[in-house]
Amino acid sequence: MKSTSYLEQEIYEQPEVIGRLLEAELENARRLAAAIRARGVQYAMIAGRGTSDNAGRYGQYLFGAMNRLPVGLATPSLFSIYAAPPRFGDALVLGISQSGQSPDIVSVLAEARRQGALTAAITNEPDSPLAAEADHVICLHAGVERSVAATKTYTAQLAAVALLNAALSSDPAHLTALQAVPAATRQTLALAPEVRRIAQRYRFVDRCVILGRGFNYATAFEIALKLKETNYIASEPYSPADFIHGPLAVLDESYAVLVIAASGALLAEMRSAIGRIAEREAEILVISDDDATLAAGKLRLRLPVTLPEWLSPMVAVIPGQLLALHMVLERGHDPDRPRGLQKVTLTL
Amino acid sequence: MKSTSYLEQEIYEQPEVIGRLLEAELENARRLAAAIRARGVQYAMIAGRGTSDNAGRYGQYLFGAMNRLPVGLATPSLFSIYAAPPRFGDALVLGISQSGQSPDIVSVLAEARRQGALTAAITNEPDSPLAAEADHVICLHAGVERSVAATKTYTAQLAAVALLNAALSSDPAHLTALQAVPAATRQTLALAPEVRRIAQRYRFVDRCVILGRGFNYATAFEIALKLKETNYIASEPYSPADFIHGPLAVLDESYAVLVIAASGALLAEMRSAIGRIAEREAEILVISDDDATLAAGKLRLRLPVTLPEWLSPMVAVIPGQLLALHMVLERGHDPDRPRGLQKVTLTL
Repeated sequence: MKSTSYLEQEIYEQPEVIGRLLEAELENARRLAAAIRARGVQYAMIAGRGTSDNAGRYGQYLFGAMNRLPVGLATPSLFSIYAAPPRFGDALVLGISQSGQSPDIVSVLAEARRQGALTAAITNEPDSPLAAEADHVICLHAGVERSVAATKTYTAQLAAVALLNAALSSDPAHLTALQAVPAATRQTLALAPEVRRIAQRYRFVDRCVILGRGFNYATAFEIALKLKETNYIASEPYSPADFIHGPLAVLDESYAVLVIAASGALLAEMRSAIGRIAEREAEILVISDDDATLAAGKLRLRLPVTLPEWLSPMVAVIPGQLLALHMVLERGHDPDRPRGLQKVTLTL
Repeated sequence: MKSTSYLEQEIYEQPEVIGRLLEAELENARRLAAAIRARGVQYAMIAGRGTSDNAGRYGQYLFGAMNRLPVGLATPSLFSIYAAPPRFGDALVLGISQSGQSPDIVSVLAEARRQGALTAAITNEPDSPLAAEADHVICLHAGVERSVAATKTYTAQLAAVALLNAALSSDPAHLTALQAVPAATRQTLALAPEVRRIAQRYRFVDRCVILGRGFNYATAFEIALKLKETNYIASEPYSPADFIHGPLAVLDESYAVLVIAASGALLAEMRSAIGRIAEREAEILVISDDDATLAAGKLRLRLPVTLPEWLSPMVAVIPGQLLALHMVLERGHDPDRPRGLQKVTLTL
């Protein structure tokens, strides 16, 4: 009998996985960056499902903000079901999949390759069908993922995206900054006792809203997905800009609201969103490295390390992963057996 | 005192609005289509918030599947908050906004124009700041929208997108097919008595999942948004392909599940999703024009007209709009005063 769950073990493997990936994949990332420059890539399309789609969302902001590359998230059904796939032209088409098996994601890359576009894959399985369709592969080096709810492969996918972003950049400081991430994730894991206390308070939460924007828009999506998969909570991720365009109306005191507010360009806006939501009597948990922002929440989880904003998603998601784990334990379920789910999901 | 709500009045104005738009804007759509061809546009970026973002989602599938144009949904914060906006290159940048006022959406178009990209706006306000930044404007002709929850401007935005799509196409049958939409929306409004019965059954629903894919992915998003804005229901839209990658775990018998399944390429997949979900004891309402698919649901709303799949979103959303209206009436709230919302939302 295993003493802890796969979910818990894999959460704690993250510092090591990210460190391994950053070292092993630097050259692959540089080769892909060189190909992007050499091919005169105009924009990128990223295809992924679930957790991998959230990693793509991070890439959308990162490549846009730091390398001025427009990024769209692909619509796989256009490739797997509808008859006439888009013409990619001078695009980079990037598939992200832990297993590299998803037929719809493979179909996007296969079509891109057929058209002669530049293709790349980020996957934990370099021998997978997805990798076979890619001109360039960045491998996650995460070891076998046994937990149904992905954690270590999510942050590894973020690290792969961040590594490519740094390789694309003309500023070598970006690569240096990345080296701080493994230690920062390790320090962030020390939040577990505080998270456990919040998980007790959250024992009967059944509706939840998670707000993040910019680089941490992906973080909001990923934490929401973890809470759904493991705790069956109706948890919805939003940018505060979208949230106040309508969904705000749902809020009442039955809601738990999580706000991801890392230091950076968006901090002021996240703080003003907290003020707006506090008027609605929902209880707010702030996840931030900034003391003034933390003080605006009823509950707080203080990120122990301040990273550059673009790297913050790799630490900001960790309290959410720990929360999913401790909530499922408080509720007496098995973290490794979420109802109705399988590890690899094959969709067209 | 008004006898019915603005929400109700505007739902019933839709056939007229769409008919007016299709007639008045054909030439503008043709001019924009000609510019897209003349400029060698490689891909499109669409920017919108809330309901307008859902119309953009429709465009993403439509332009991709029928005109092979890759489309990404823009990330406005890259323009309004982060320092270095993406380089658009040979892109069409399309802003969608009822009011044409959203500062973040205007900032996307302003930057695109500054870069020399082709810009276009779909708006109800041809004198708005958004229209001022656009090389081409397609006007909604929807009249003043007084309801906080948008209905007529949503289907008008879809009609504008569909008109542009038809103008881009080399097949004149697409323009002809569009002419059937106003009458089809009128016939669909006759579902109101059946919707009212379902609204009674839904009196205590507080969690809901809405599934759609392809052209009707947007429909799932838009119905979910209406149910949130007017009835404060935790309603989440999904593609079935994403849903079974994790969120499926949330389902239990407390959930109402709505499935949008219009005839077309995706019908078989939607039917198999219904089968998968029925195993989880959630109660399923099917909205479809296909009798065999309707028979798979516990509850049914039969779309009275079968349109080509690409046009079906303009009718498939109507039962959802009517459901939002009748649910709010059953719950004794004012359809025109959703808590916490304003008509025009200005976000950066």
